[in-house]
Amino acid sequence: MDKKTPLSEEGGDQVHANRVAIIGASGYGGLQSIRLLQNHPFFEITFLGGKRTTGEKWNDICPYLPLQNDLVIQPPHPEKISEVADFAVLSLPNGEACQLVPELLDNNVRVVDLSADFRYSSLDQWSKTYVHEAQKLNRTDSDLCSEAVYGIPEWKANSISEARLVASPGCFPTASLLPLLPFLNQGLIEQEGLIIDAKTGTSGGGRSPKEVFLLAEASESISPYGVVGHRHTSEIEQIASEVAGHEIKLQFTPHLVPMVRGLLSTVYARLRDPGLTAEDCTTVLKAIYRDKPSIEVLPVGTYPATKWVKHTNKAMLSVQVDTRTSRLILMSAIDNLVKGQAGQAIQCLNLMAGLESETGMPLYPFYP
Amino acid sequence: MDKKTPLSEEGGDQVHANRVAIIGASGYGGLQSIRLLQNHPFFEITFLGGKRTTGEKWNDICPYLPLQNDLVIQPPHPEKISEVADFAVLSLPNGEACQLVPELLDNNVRVVDLSADFRYSSLDQWSKTYVHEAQKLNRTDSDLCSEAVYGIPEWKANSISEARLVASPGCFPTASLLPLLPFLNQGLIEQEGLIIDAKTGTSGGGRSPKEVFLLAEASESISPYGVVGHRHTSEIEQIASEVAGHEIKLQFTPHLVPMVRGLLSTVYARLRDPGLTAEDCTTVLKAIYRDKPSIEVLPVGTYPATKWVKHTNKAMLSVQVDTRTSRLILMSAIDNLVKGQAGQAIQCLNLMAGLESETGMPLYPFYP
Amino acid sequence: MDKKTPLSEEGGDQVHANRVAIIGASGYGGLQSIRLLQNHPFFEITFLGGKRTTGEKWNDICPYLPLQNDLVIQPPHPEKISEVADFAVLSLPNGEACQLVPELLDNNVRVVDLSADFRYSSLDQWSKTYVHEAQKLNRTDSDLCSEAVYGIPEWKANSISEARLVASPGCFPTASLLPLLPFLNQGLIEQEGLIIDAKTGTSGGGRSPKEVFLLAEASESISPYGVVGHRHTSEIEQIASEVAGHEIKLQFTPHLVPMVRGLLSTVYARLRDPGLTAEDCTTVLKAIYRDKPSIEVLPVGTYPATKWVKHTNKAMLSVQVDTRTSRLILMSAIDNLVKGQAGQAIQCLNLMAGLESETGMPLYPFYP
Amino acid sequence: MDKKTPLSEEGGDQVHANRVAIIGASGYGGLQSIRLLQNHPFFEITFLGGKRTTGEKWNDICPYLPLQNDLVIQPPHPEKISEVADFAVLSLPNGEACQLVPELLDNNVRVVDLSADFRYSSLDQWSKTYVHEAQKLNRTDSDLCSEAVYGIPEWKANSISEARLVASPGCFPTASLLPLLPFLNQGLIEQEGLIIDAKTGTSGGGRSPKEVFLLAEASESISPYGVVGHRHTSEIEQIASEVAGHEIKLQFTPHLVPMVRGLLSTVYARLRDPGLTAEDCTTVLKAIYRDKPSIEVLPVGTYPATKWVKHTNKAMLSVQVDTRTSRLILMSAIDNLVKGQAGQAIQCLNLMAGLESETGMPLYPFYP
Repeated sequence: MDKKTPLSEEGGDQVHANRVAIIGASGYGGLQSIRLLQNHPFFEITFLGGKRTTGEKWNDICPYLPLQNDLVIQPPHPEKISEVADFAVLSLPNGEACQLVPELLDNNVRVVDLSADFRYSSLDQWSKTYVHEAQKLNRTDSDLCSEAVYGIPEWKANSISEARLVASPGCFPTASLLPLLPFLNQGLIEQEGLIIDAKTGTSGGGRSPKEVFLLAEASESISPYGVVGHRHTSEIEQIASEVAGHEIKLQFTPHLVPMVRGLLSTVYARLRDPGLTAEDCTTVLKAIYRDKPSIEVLPVGTYPATKWVKHTNKAMLSVQVDTRTSRLILMSAIDNLVKGQAGQAIQCLNLMAGLESETGMPLYPFYP
Repeated sequence: MDKKTPLSEEGGDQVHANRVAIIGASGYGGLQSIRLLQNHPFFEITFLGGKRTTGEKWNDICPYLPLQNDLVIQPPHPEKISEVADFAVLSLPNGEACQLVPELLDNNVRVVDLSADFRYSSLDQWSKTYVHEAQKLNRTDSDLCSEAVYGIPEWKANSISEARLVASPGCFPTASLLPLLPFLNQGLIEQEGLIIDAKTGTSGGGRSPKEVFLLAEASESISPYGVVGHRHTSEIEQIASEVAGHEIKLQFTPHLVPMVRGLLSTVYARLRDPGLTAEDCTTVLKAIYRDKPSIEVLPVGTYPATKWVKHTNKAMLSVQVDTRTSRLILMSAIDNLVKGQAGQAIQCLNLMAGLESETGMPLYPFYP
Repeated sequence: MDKKTPLSEEGGDQVHANRVAIIGASGYGGLQSIRLLQNHPFFEITFLGGKRTTGEKWNDICPYLPLQNDLVIQPPHPEKISEVADFAVLSLPNGEACQLVPELLDNNVRVVDLSADFRYSSLDQWSKTYVHEAQKLNRTDSDLCSEAVYGIPEWKANSISEARLVASPGCFPTASLLPLLPFLNQGLIEQEGLIIDAKTGTSGGGRSPKEVFLLAEASESISPYGVVGHRHTSEIEQIASEVAGHEIKLQFTPHLVPMVRGLLSTVYARLRDPGLTAEDCTTVLKAIYRDKPSIEVLPVGTYPATKWVKHTNKAMLSVQVDTRTSRLILMSAIDNLVKGQAGQAIQCLNLMAGLESETGMPLYPFYP
Repeated sequence: MDKKTPLSEEGGDQVHANRVAIIGASGYGGLQSIRLLQNHPFFEITFLGGKRTTGEKWNDICPYLPLQNDLVIQPPHPEKISEVADFAVLSLPNGEACQLVPELLDNNVRVVDLSADFRYSSLDQWSKTYVHEAQKLNRTDSDLCSEAVYGIPEWKANSISEARLVASPGCFPTASLLPLLPFLNQGLIEQEGLIIDAKTGTSGGGRSPKEVFLLAEASESISPYGVVGHRHTSEIEQIASEVAGHEIKLQFTPHLVPMVRGLLSTVYARLRDPGLTAEDCTTVLKAIYRDKPSIEVLPVGTYPATKWVKHTNKAMLSVQVDTRTSRLILMSAIDNLVKGQAGQAIQCLNLMAGLESETGMPLYPFYP
């Protein structure tokens, strides 16, 4: 659609450092990435990789989101990718990215991975959490696990911008950590007793058809799942502990909500200083996220609806305090496929390319 | 549709003690009550009261739920009601039932009230919680507030069966208290730190059109509302405190979910004895609700979906325990308009008429 | 739940002629059949057959719809079925029922088949329509095709009551034929130019997960499919031609609607006599369906919503006439899984057992 | 958000000819207009008018769609509007725009009206169709009715670009006329017997709360409404007749679909030449809409889903032919609030300002 202007016309690698390969193109993560890059002022999509749809022309399988260069979907061979791309966005099932990443990096393709494969700095921790995947593989890439940067642009912009490998966070951790980290970081809340009650739309379950995500099943119903021990628990705890400076154990309960997109996290914590008001706590958030265009801190008494952030990269945060119980309640709404997935990945990509993190990002919804 | 057999053919009041007036017929509470009584083996609907639809024939305004006697909707005059009805089910906005109840009782009409008017044993407490309504009225019926029985059939069957006036609980309190009360009653959980994160379908907002409940607004979105201080907080606390034997203060956060019906309550508590397992806690629930057909305790690891209880009077409960955090997680799904409203009211009506509480109650859903 | 009273306690086959096997239990057709028979005053479910769930206990895989006798799902061996069942309801993919039916009939099990296998009186016609299935099979049972009764109880009650084999009609044909047949039968409309524009909920696509029926895909969208040549076209034309007494060719376009259940058919025809009014045409329908409790003819100007018939066996019909264009517009709403599938099958089962066709049928919805 | 570059820096009115007033800002039409102009490279919103929200700051009532200049909503006084705006987009209930338009035009404000007030070139025709509104007003502006241009940019670009007053078409006419006009224009289909079966999401009913548009009512249901005589019938007929060159009478039946946005029109016509194939007819459409970026003609056999055009200004068209019946079936999907309302209005605004009609228009969806 748009002509892309390379950063510099003159010499060197940088001329082409805007070429992006998207692997797992026809899944929801791939689809969002394509949509975001299709409108992007800098990047150009030069390679589409996939299994299920190998050999098909993109514009045939996706008539509503055509690409000008109408790429053919190809098997994701790292070397071939490296010939045409500077960056690769991997949107693959857990346990698949780690089989591609080493070779991609070796071929100088910088990677943003949307799976969980590199979200833990410790391979051991990953193997404990993704037991099933770990058993089938024989990962020995603990160095890459340490190297990979956990891609929350609002907290790790510098590391991301220099990274070869970014592990883009999951939707639940993103929504939950964004309001929580400032309070953990400043020691304003008790370390114990944190509760995250999260609600997600069904697109979080991916595009591979499963009975539980059929409209007939999921519509007109809400239910908890993965109660106690959901894999995002340890991902959240890892970052929360890192930012708090001590080990955090918390309760995380996801729920499946009858809607396509959107994720709401309601976080319960206890204030150390019972005198803090909702206004005080809102000020804390506003100060920390002052220069972060993707984060919107709502006024006290305004609570976020996921519809307000649909199809945008915004995270809308709101704070309330119950003085009766000294309880801090944090609310956070994101689009699980944008700020909770591909949008955040493109933010990282922007930083890696030396751009502003919100370059090309949609920040306003079509309401309703 | 069905011919009703009066309890006794021989003389006395009891011959006719199956006649029910429904006031507020065309709202959702009224509609469900009519649907449940239309199929009921004992009761007969003999009066329909309403404001908005006064003078209209029921079958004209509700072609999908015709009544054989095709009643005309009338203004709810207590005396007229008493001429044709033994019981009245009131499904009116808060602050309206209390204007009808004294005269109904004086005329020997026993009342099940679906509003909040008599849910607090203390008129003072009601006035503090329903400030807006209290200011417009000048209630002096604190004796009736004390007399009214809070209508949870699983906990107060005896009082209900003898009551003149039953205050049918709200949907949030019903869903939240059913799993919680056994643990409070047996002292198995800490009194402090209770958190109820609840999710409701939009029919909970009633049939009067409001922007927030439009499909265009509420669909494809989830949001918290009434965070801190929602009026159901004190209703829950009142009963929780009574059953626990000491004052309980808790956190209650409702969320609006894009579905017509259904209410899920996720309750977080801390176990006194960290050695208790999910199986132990499930046994506790099963023991207490053994003979309660409307309560279904699910096996450990099976979590309730609201779709499983849709259009039924069932409450499906499930328990999980996180041994890392000593946290007890209770999950409870109901249909907000049946077990959470009219179904529970008819359970009470059954008890008041000397019937089994589940008489005529739907207990199985049409899935999906 | 309910104790079933056999028709007669004394001697003879009839004592047990209420035992029903349901094959394909965990699909939507099976599930509805179980739900309808679970509440049924006469029939008893004695066998559950299935492939995917063979060996599992019903109550484990379906905690929301438990059976008192908690059957284990078994492979559908005709002989085994015949030992415990008088009737079999087959809810299987097209091309599977015809492999079971001959042996079932040979073993004196009367069959109601929910698939398309026996909906055509000509095997040839079936093979032309279900090409893919026909190629894999080598059907030679054209005698059974002729014998099978097309199970619309409102039009074929006598044949159904005596049938060994009933082919229960599809959801689109049911909804479309019910309003149309009276006008064809009485020669009130032109034979040419009939148009059926139909809209179905996604449960019509079955429970096997397919991408197109995922909530994320199907929600918030409407689209036509199978435009020109959809297989239900010839099924509708077969019955329409039979009732009209001459060959009918018509246009049928199905659309996928973002809802779980419900099917609406909007039928366009041209009146032979331009003087006929909507009231006249409503009278025609009312006369024909006077004694049919499952058919509700709405007053002129009231148009059916699928929600009015949800979870019921009702078909709601409405007529409008445009005098400018001499156009007759017929509207018809059903629940695709009840009157459009399992409910109609149980109606047939009732007739086969000598009961009233609506025995045990739900006719009133829980609105909203 | 974006800095706007005026068309010309040098002198004259044109410097400022990018200032737009939006009247009826907080309704759905206003909201979409603001969203589209907020991202627009040329226009600037300089005035927000409204009744219900007069005096409020935009950013307070719409936290998810903030404006940099955070306008206060004001009463729509034509003179005040003319001081700050070159264009006015009116998104008001029928019968209100015509009270503002004369004075706006007198003050040199060019107008795009989203209501039906100026969609008929004959005031008489309007008065016959909008009887209720006509009775309350005493309109004498038949000259303005003749002057107003019916704003379909794909058919009337030249007139629109010079117009003082554009009447933006309704959503049903837009979706129905776009595929139909080419065939009428070229005389390829019979003039009689046209049938339009249309399906719309509930946002088409506007933001003023009505019971029928509540999620609890409209969700999980589809129903026809306004059968025979819906007001969009004559609007469609007026344009169809004009383009066909003779009077067209057709059948139009709208249906309410349980989704927020989206409109699908299924149009049935009879081919004059029975030899024409679907490919031929697709070629006809492609030829006519070759240079129209908002119109996408799908390959034969690909049918449009409204989700494919959600939040975009695209109309997706598809053609099928039934050679058995010589029937042409046209399918057309739009977003009812974009191409069916505000998007089309901004297309007109673009043309009026001398820009390409798709300037700033979103053409690709966020799927799913």
